[in-house]
Amino acid sequence: MLAAQGAEVAGTVSEAISASPLVIICVLDYRAVNEILEQASDTLNGRAIVNLTNGTPAQARQTADWAAERGAEYLDGGIMGIPQMIGTPGAFLLYSGSQKIFDTYGPVLESFGAARYLGQDPGLAPLHDLALLSAMYGMFGGFFHAVAMVRSEQIQAEAFTTLVVPWLQAMSASLPHLAQAVDTGDHRTEVSSLHINQTGFIHFIDACRELGISAELMTPIQELINRGVAEGYGADGLSRLVELLRKPELA
Amino acid sequence: MLAAQGAEVAGTVSEAISASPLVIICVLDYRAVNEILEQASDTLNGRAIVNLTNGTPAQARQTADWAAERGAEYLDGGIMGIPQMIGTPGAFLLYSGSQKIFDTYGPVLESFGAARYLGQDPGLAPLHDLALLSAMYGMFGGFFHAVAMVRSEQIQAEAFTTLVVPWLQAMSASLPHLAQAVDTGDHRTEVSSLHINQTGFIHFIDACRELGISAELMTPIQELINRGVAEGYGADGLSRLVELLRKPELA
Repeated sequence: MLAAQGAEVAGTVSEAISASPLVIICVLDYRAVNEILEQASDTLNGRAIVNLTNGTPAQARQTADWAAERGAEYLDGGIMGIPQMIGTPGAFLLYSGSQKIFDTYGPVLESFGAARYLGQDPGLAPLHDLALLSAMYGMFGGFFHAVAMVRSEQIQAEAFTTLVVPWLQAMSASLPHLAQAVDTGDHRTEVSSLHINQTGFIHFIDACRELGISAELMTPIQELINRGVAEGYGADGLSRLVELLRKPELA
Repeated sequence: MLAAQGAEVAGTVSEAISASPLVIICVLDYRAVNEILEQASDTLNGRAIVNLTNGTPAQARQTADWAAERGAEYLDGGIMGIPQMIGTPGAFLLYSGSQKIFDTYGPVLESFGAARYLGQDPGLAPLHDLALLSAMYGMFGGFFHAVAMVRSEQIQAEAFTTLVVPWLQAMSASLPHLAQAVDTGDHRTEVSSLHINQTGFIHFIDACRELGISAELMTPIQELINRGVAEGYGADGLSRLVELLRKPELA
């Protein structure tokens, strides 16, 4: 399809890499990345590798080290958006690793979507990619639970979105405040303590049961709140929960 | 405190209710509501009761019926906001039940915050209140997980919010589309199938472990996705998950 639009198809990975100083890789996973790069190991010297494949911070760092040993610069990238968004103003991409690549090929990278450089550690792009993904899954999970609730009483989900979208936007304004509490370690609150949330959650879960809805996406939050209270943090705000997630021995 | 500002303190609940055609109640729970109203049972005839106490749809309907038997009109309300927001443009309140009360006392109700009337069924306000609350908890849960991830790599949470707040706002634009899929039952997707999400989630959970973060707020979403695939919905989009939450026998 791309060939019909003028792209030249190379016979081998080495031929493709030899044809251009800039190599852009976006495949299924790092196993595929490594297999592809191994095939062209001796042609990588002096090349700029941009890897948009999903992976973990450790995988990005490992591949960056491997590329450096072969004389290649490495920039890791995370695509924040769905394929249809690529090339539109809605898409943005996170990059980390070689600043030289980011500065040299800025216009090429901007053609995929708004480009944001996070720093020289190649692990930063996948780290932020995964973190943003988890924030999205959380929001979607809460939304799906909410829609299940209103649908159980024959309310149209679309009508409900006229309330929930502005509500979530209003509530997202409190995230910087919660973040500040995490950064400073000062989790004191005058309004929404873990203890108040614990009490409210009991009624909330009761209501889910009353409506015939599984509370499976909400009970983990309840359990985390209960753990916070049990550990003596009942007077702290919800931001305290971040610290509890960083004690994997309890999970 | 309010007395110092000119409020008259009544000696009993009956005295308070007799003093005004409009009765506004906002207490801990419905047990407290019922106890208070029982004390003034014989003074309720012809009164307008506005109840802003948190509860379930069934509790609101029950109290509305009880009030109707005593000749009172009943309007149920849900406060969407924290106490500090009351009286500011940030607060809004959901109402359902007696439209007569809502129309007659509109200016009084607007003094608490923007007022939205959802319909004559008194259960609608608590239903939407609880649904919005669950959407908020989901978003907060995802945010807390995300912050735990970036903090594990010494990234400041506040710096991260400059990415995550616009990201969540961009992603919330997809909620009406997901809602439409739920309303129509057409969960087909060209991009983000349950199957694709299932594959991605394996890497995602691995990354959480790699960072030393508990995935307890994310694994329930993973399990729901896995259940969807196991039930034969792998080609459907994430909106299918709403249907799975409405099968409580599986939860």
